[in-house]
Amino acid sequence: MKKKTTIYDIAQELGVTVSTVSRALSGFPAISKATRQAVIAAAARLNYSPNKLASALKSGKTFIVGVIVPSVEAHFFATIIHNIEEGLKDSGYRIILFQSKESLANEIRGVKTLLEAQVDGILASMSLETNDVAHFQEIVAQNKPLIIFDRVNQEINVPTITLNDFRAGYMATEHLIKQGYRNIAFVTTTHQVKIFNDRLNGYKEALKKHNLKVNEHHIILGGLSINDGRFGAGQLLQTLPKPDAIIAGDDFTALGVIKELQEAGEVPPKIGVIGFANETFSAYITPSLSTIDQHPSQMGAACAEMFLKMVSQQNPYENIGNVVIEPTLIPRASTTKLQESESLID
Amino acid sequence: MKKKTTIYDIAQELGVTVSTVSRALSGFPAISKATRQAVIAAAARLNYSPNKLASALKSGKTFIVGVIVPSVEAHFFATIIHNIEEGLKDSGYRIILFQSKESLANEIRGVKTLLEAQVDGILASMSLETNDVAHFQEIVAQNKPLIIFDRVNQEINVPTITLNDFRAGYMATEHLIKQGYRNIAFVTTTHQVKIFNDRLNGYKEALKKHNLKVNEHHIILGGLSINDGRFGAGQLLQTLPKPDAIIAGDDFTALGVIKELQEAGEVPPKIGVIGFANETFSAYITPSLSTIDQHPSQMGAACAEMFLKMVSQQNPYENIGNVVIEPTLIPRASTTKLQESESLID
Repeated sequence: MKKKTTIYDIAQELGVTVSTVSRALSGFPAISKATRQAVIAAAARLNYSPNKLASALKSGKTFIVGVIVPSVEAHFFATIIHNIEEGLKDSGYRIILFQSKESLANEIRGVKTLLEAQVDGILASMSLETNDVAHFQEIVAQNKPLIIFDRVNQEINVPTITLNDFRAGYMATEHLIKQGYRNIAFVTTTHQVKIFNDRLNGYKEALKKHNLKVNEHHIILGGLSINDGRFGAGQLLQTLPKPDAIIAGDDFTALGVIKELQEAGEVPPKIGVIGFANETFSAYITPSLSTIDQHPSQMGAACAEMFLKMVSQQNPYENIGNVVIEPTLIPRASTTKLQESESLID
Repeated sequence: MKKKTTIYDIAQELGVTVSTVSRALSGFPAISKATRQAVIAAAARLNYSPNKLASALKSGKTFIVGVIVPSVEAHFFATIIHNIEEGLKDSGYRIILFQSKESLANEIRGVKTLLEAQVDGILASMSLETNDVAHFQEIVAQNKPLIIFDRVNQEINVPTITLNDFRAGYMATEHLIKQGYRNIAFVTTTHQVKIFNDRLNGYKEALKKHNLKVNEHHIILGGLSINDGRFGAGQLLQTLPKPDAIIAGDDFTALGVIKELQEAGEVPPKIGVIGFANETFSAYITPSLSTIDQHPSQMGAACAEMFLKMVSQQNPYENIGNVVIEPTLIPRASTTKLQESESLID
């Protein structure tokens, strides 16, 4: 069967962007008459479907999608972005990025900036500060697709793509218990983003399941960074009973925890350390860092697929279900507890 | 002296974006009459300079700046972006990002996408594939500021902000020589981006200065990544004379070099390894990685400062000089050569 001509083929044929084709078809004023004529001629020449032509004539799409993330520095978000791009490129969409830098004010500016840049839709992961979702409503009001991924909020009523974070917290904790650790602490964040609560609940549930007590002094609430990890580990080393394992809210925080423990002579895996996100460096530090893989490639691919479905519908929000991705444990040296026999030799 | 009212103050006063104020003043059709009147009233109330008002009425600026980088995953580029944002935010500018993913075709799409998104100017670092600069001319033709940073090209005739890359290559090589290494190899890239040639020339010059021969078999040309580093080190281990030190084109490549050497039992610093860029992980791997700090914060700040100067001028390109930043050596364990006495004990 012959592949149907898309707006993308017309763009290729003429060596212009999909946005130019779309704007030419929809009579956007900044497009010259000559370009418009060339586009319509190419559409005819390539047997572009008259129905599609009619709809493109109305749409005026830019084929630009906006993506808002807390920070592009995290490998986790960079991988999601990469996979969104991969998933969208055959349909002619390009993405532009905006970083909230974990600030609600920046996130609000990001939504406005991207809408002003005429994006066709927005995919966003919330900042740690986001306790209000009113700024996202303008996207919905413009009948453009909005998808929230990874960092979501209870109040938002649009399609989401998330990790099973309860399971991730449970999995990290149960792994440590199975390795023989018993006093397991958690260095995480105070912020109200749902995923962190879910992980903490998973941690508590796993402790209960294995008849271990939840010790509130073992839960350190701060931010997520190398420095926060150092600070959290420093606090925990002065807490009685001293923890024999620490779960860190992400791999950067885990890096800080390890550094602090090493300087205190409590070199992991003597005290076990596990993070979240499987950052690029995690396999290469010493000891190599156990972590929970949150499958950012899958998450990015799911974002792209959902966006393409939404943008193809009259009402983007019709019949779109949420997607939940299951985490995977990556055990490495930082949680390989020494055997009793080995400790005795020391 | 009282601070002069800026368009940013008007935006703050009304709780709208600078872009909305600018578009309202310039009579952009999408702005409602009510908003336009509120903006003009606020401008009058805050004593906004009538000259500025006149110029804003013409400009129709969006106060959005586009930034194109090869990849946001590299800490180096993420730090530059962060410092561009910091340097521009008080002037009301926000940035949107586009990744070329080291592809010329993507970079061309990036320029088009950002211009279609109505950015006021573009700051770009070239992809490894960029051997032609025609796509950048449209920005200049629109009389908008274009600044090329870090990855530049001989042919481009716009302001640049670069590292002294010759000095960086020289510095890495001389450090290894001073540590006692004599057969120094270089794993770098074939691509024609100027910075890599400059570093290679610095390397050759340092060898000559210290009466060491340049051995073409010790220069491995490929890409820059963990895998390219593994491949390069694998090649070099089979080359005679076997190198006793390896300079890697960036820290990711150095990570691959170290991994390969460790697996071959040639654990650094037995064979010395140095990278470029001082990535987040570089201090934390084992052995900790010596590297050249390229001062991305300084580079980002310089980009912001130059952009603000260009955008304030009738002709953005008038009297704008290039900026060159000096590198700094960060020596760590990966190049601390064992003393002869120590090696004899082994």
